[in-house]
Amino acid sequence: MTAPGRTTSRAAALRHLLDRPELSFLMEAHNGLSAKLVERAGFEGIWASGLSIAAALGVRDSNEASWTQVLEVAEFMSDATRIPILLDGDTGYGNFNSVRRLVRKLEQRGVAGVCVEDKLFPKMNSFVRGGAQPLADAEEFAGKIGAAKSAQHDPDFVVVARTEALIAGQGLAEALRRAELYRCAGADAILVHSARSDADEVRAFKAEWGDRLPVVIVPTKYYRTPTEVFAEDGFSTVVWANHLMRSALRAMQITASTIFAEQHLRNVEGAVAPLAEVFEIQGEDELAEAEQRWLPQRNTPRR
Amino acid sequence: MTAPGRTTSRAAALRHLLDRPELSFLMEAHNGLSAKLVERAGFEGIWASGLSIAAALGVRDSNEASWTQVLEVAEFMSDATRIPILLDGDTGYGNFNSVRRLVRKLEQRGVAGVCVEDKLFPKMNSFVRGGAQPLADAEEFAGKIGAAKSAQHDPDFVVVARTEALIAGQGLAEALRRAELYRCAGADAILVHSARSDADEVRAFKAEWGDRLPVVIVPTKYYRTPTEVFAEDGFSTVVWANHLMRSALRAMQITASTIFAEQHLRNVEGAVAPLAEVFEIQGEDELAEAEQRWLPQRNTPRR
Amino acid sequence: MTAPGRTTSRAAALRHLLDRPELSFLMEAHNGLSAKLVERAGFEGIWASGLSIAAALGVRDSNEASWTQVLEVAEFMSDATRIPILLDGDTGYGNFNSVRRLVRKLEQRGVAGVCVEDKLFPKMNSFVRGGAQPLADAEEFAGKIGAAKSAQHDPDFVVVARTEALIAGQGLAEALRRAELYRCAGADAILVHSARSDADEVRAFKAEWGDRLPVVIVPTKYYRTPTEVFAEDGFSTVVWANHLMRSALRAMQITASTIFAEQHLRNVEGAVAPLAEVFEIQGEDELAEAEQRWLPQRNTPRR
Amino acid sequence: MTAPGRTTSRAAALRHLLDRPELSFLMEAHNGLSAKLVERAGFEGIWASGLSIAAALGVRDSNEASWTQVLEVAEFMSDATRIPILLDGDTGYGNFNSVRRLVRKLEQRGVAGVCVEDKLFPKMNSFVRGGAQPLADAEEFAGKIGAAKSAQHDPDFVVVARTEALIAGQGLAEALRRAELYRCAGADAILVHSARSDADEVRAFKAEWGDRLPVVIVPTKYYRTPTEVFAEDGFSTVVWANHLMRSALRAMQITASTIFAEQHLRNVEGAVAPLAEVFEIQGEDELAEAEQRWLPQRNTPRR
Repeated sequence: MTAPGRTTSRAAALRHLLDRPELSFLMEAHNGLSAKLVERAGFEGIWASGLSIAAALGVRDSNEASWTQVLEVAEFMSDATRIPILLDGDTGYGNFNSVRRLVRKLEQRGVAGVCVEDKLFPKMNSFVRGGAQPLADAEEFAGKIGAAKSAQHDPDFVVVARTEALIAGQGLAEALRRAELYRCAGADAILVHSARSDADEVRAFKAEWGDRLPVVIVPTKYYRTPTEVFAEDGFSTVVWANHLMRSALRAMQITASTIFAEQHLRNVEGAVAPLAEVFEIQGEDELAEAEQRWLPQRNTPRR
Repeated sequence: MTAPGRTTSRAAALRHLLDRPELSFLMEAHNGLSAKLVERAGFEGIWASGLSIAAALGVRDSNEASWTQVLEVAEFMSDATRIPILLDGDTGYGNFNSVRRLVRKLEQRGVAGVCVEDKLFPKMNSFVRGGAQPLADAEEFAGKIGAAKSAQHDPDFVVVARTEALIAGQGLAEALRRAELYRCAGADAILVHSARSDADEVRAFKAEWGDRLPVVIVPTKYYRTPTEVFAEDGFSTVVWANHLMRSALRAMQITASTIFAEQHLRNVEGAVAPLAEVFEIQGEDELAEAEQRWLPQRNTPRR
Repeated sequence: MTAPGRTTSRAAALRHLLDRPELSFLMEAHNGLSAKLVERAGFEGIWASGLSIAAALGVRDSNEASWTQVLEVAEFMSDATRIPILLDGDTGYGNFNSVRRLVRKLEQRGVAGVCVEDKLFPKMNSFVRGGAQPLADAEEFAGKIGAAKSAQHDPDFVVVARTEALIAGQGLAEALRRAELYRCAGADAILVHSARSDADEVRAFKAEWGDRLPVVIVPTKYYRTPTEVFAEDGFSTVVWANHLMRSALRAMQITASTIFAEQHLRNVEGAVAPLAEVFEIQGEDELAEAEQRWLPQRNTPRR
Repeated sequence: MTAPGRTTSRAAALRHLLDRPELSFLMEAHNGLSAKLVERAGFEGIWASGLSIAAALGVRDSNEASWTQVLEVAEFMSDATRIPILLDGDTGYGNFNSVRRLVRKLEQRGVAGVCVEDKLFPKMNSFVRGGAQPLADAEEFAGKIGAAKSAQHDPDFVVVARTEALIAGQGLAEALRRAELYRCAGADAILVHSARSDADEVRAFKAEWGDRLPVVIVPTKYYRTPTEVFAEDGFSTVVWANHLMRSALRAMQITASTIFAEQHLRNVEGAVAPLAEVFEIQGEDELAEAEQRWLPQRNTPRR
């Protein structure tokens, strides 16, 4: 679990991921288990996806779970891992004061950074129903970013400003204008999102934006663009935004259907993770050692 | 989401599942999403597995998450479904008073029943490290069952008494003695657990137990036994205890490894649930209709 | 603690309080203890004040605590009492969908009703800094009220629509216009708030409003107006909005100062509630009886 | 609110309070507001009393609230203050592993230390019903203390081992034996509790104990003993354990009764804290300044 001092470690690590020239990758996770699996797979950082967290909880990606319920998910994820976590903080769950509170709570829990987007609260997922969503007032959002930066105690804590201007159909100039406002307000990186099936508009953004600040992208919709293109363009970080949740979903559908139809586990047992592996991932060995150390050995191992 | 009156419906449905002659099945779920998938697969009831909930959170199955954290998971699951949920309530998280409080909170959240086991608190998963765990004092545990039954407001709320006597190596006579005590204390069903790779000891239990009370089994370890055997023996319910979590785990490992190695999504996109399906499962359509109904139509659809 | 069926009882009781001709009173409480004291004092209903809840938590009345943190406070209050609770639900914590979710959660926890106000989220307390606050779009707020009513399962659950139009300096006509919109949307009562030190503007409202719907007032600022005036004018309910929190605050200041200065408890012990009284209010007797009933009597009374 | 680095500050401050020769004092608080008042009164440290927290929530001091519910209360208290908080951690809410988890969570939230007692879980308040309660196995409890110390990241985090041996009627020798075991396990201080109306048994303990480790006492029952006696005996710290909650209770009873009888606020308004004072204590000024800083000034001050 995170030591207070380790917050600096993880925030600094996230900052490094974002700042270095090489393209970095963040993999989605939505709970402690998926966070552990992201780490075990070798990724350097975790994207705590709002959509995936909401879907896993069984609610919609429209701020149905409260921000403290999301915070608790992020805490379980932070406890379960050592690599940095960037929380998808939606719109910050309110106004500038909500964001200040969010930043402090995230720091306490060892989360390395937060991404806040310039939509209105409560949010609607960017890919739902396609239609243009109204954007937050740009100056007010810049104030949110500034407030977030003013609130953090750890100078390395990362605040990513995400602009939905392109998705909202407001055009490149507006996206650039907003991104610049947010950069001036203190953002550590810009996330420019797009719902296009090609990378044209984000690439156009990057071409104009240059290297003013690291640019993060989420190519869920334009996944066919070769990743080399993103690297060559000089993007900072690519977020694989929701694929663990979506693969878990598919697998669970198949397993549930199979067991329902067959009414036995014979074909399923070999296709799922063995219990021994679950216990290993959970860290049962550590608990067993701790029991040896901390429980009196003369009587039963548990009380 | 559950209406107060619907608690009766779901508890009555669970009671029916347990009481009817035909063999019933409960499928594991560990969060709102997996709960929805269990329902969609056609199952009549959900087993909210303590192991799976803990694993999904990223903690161990030793009461590391607090009982109110588990309660909140159960609430999200209850909100997401209409079929009954039987919560794996570990040892009841404390003493008879803890169980009384648990039952009332579960009822409020629309959970149909709880299963409480005669181990000590904090618990250790029955399959971990094989060794015999000490059991709770049988009379005290019977008091817990009685207290649980005294606490419920809905007469249909189900309390399943689970005995770990066989797993603890205490033998058939002790398992029967305890089950009888718990039956007399008011249990609605007995869950007799076994870690053997064959069904011999649970079948021996059932043969002696007869039809005094429905008997629930969890054949995770003895899954090779044909389900027909359980039906013929007259067991009430079979619990498929953790296979959705374990299949999600395996799938996420594969997806994470694939994306890590390939650094793109092209081979993954077609293997995971499409976003449109995620939105459908989340109920985005309902929200869209509600927006039409409740937001003024003259301006933007969202504020 | 509240049984699911008792929600109907308490919501119906609150409805009755609001609807009957006689002037009714709701007394503020902010946690389980103050809620019990309100009930013991003889009051028929509790006002779960947003300001008082926030102050007790140590935060500001600007939605700093999340809505689920407030919900948990309301749950503890509901568990501790049998009289109805009307929750000060601020602006509903978001949009129409937030309010739908809030209503269902409140019903589950046995809260009898919610009051929602037409300010913007996050809110600022009506008495802070005097200046006019922007109001929520009236039609959108009416949609919130309609959505709230559509979400409740218990037909007796109460939704009070609170208009801040007078405090916002928008005038009587606007207050009446809004109140009528909210009434048409299904509100069970209107709360018209005023920061004046006299009751003139709320009385003018009532004179125009007539008996279209019960009118609730919060005379914190115009407390000098004799209560008989409110009764004669035909107001439904008077809310004593924050005086338990404010008296607790004052008393604790005095006690803390005294103990700090004197460095002993001799003058304080006789001025504070005896421990025996605390245990009685907490219900220790019930627990003692329950221990007798549910714990094996042969050994120690507690394990 | 606590910065990660400030945990060291507050834990170090608590350690200093306990270690220095002069008698120190900790004043009870049970929520953010009372915690602020303790700080404002000039106290150097806060005792987050289990009894008072439970009473304020409206539940009994028998682990009815979950440990994470108590943790959240402690977090609000920590956010609201800058002086150190010692949490009354009951029995640690479980076993050695529960305590490890508790310590890490407390550190994250800026709580300076925890006091754990050698009773059984769930606990019963030491003063309830007088009868002897069974004590936890001394060696196992020493293991809890050792586990707690092994879990902390901040070397200054304080773990106080509280022995109930005297209250349980086990006598001085047993109290000393246990305290020594706990000291050897790494406890930073010993809290020896007594229900006697005189200080005889704690003084006898201290006389034998000497200066092996700081000794903390809670003279709620033996409050008539002059504090100078405690100072001369060389006790480390006196805890005023529950008097803010008990004075709040008394004040709220009086206010509720008065308002109920009089049906007006005229005699109450002058006896309670003014709203302006509430707003000041809450820190509304800071929020007003922050609004000036972070909200665009061209439009309304709030959105």
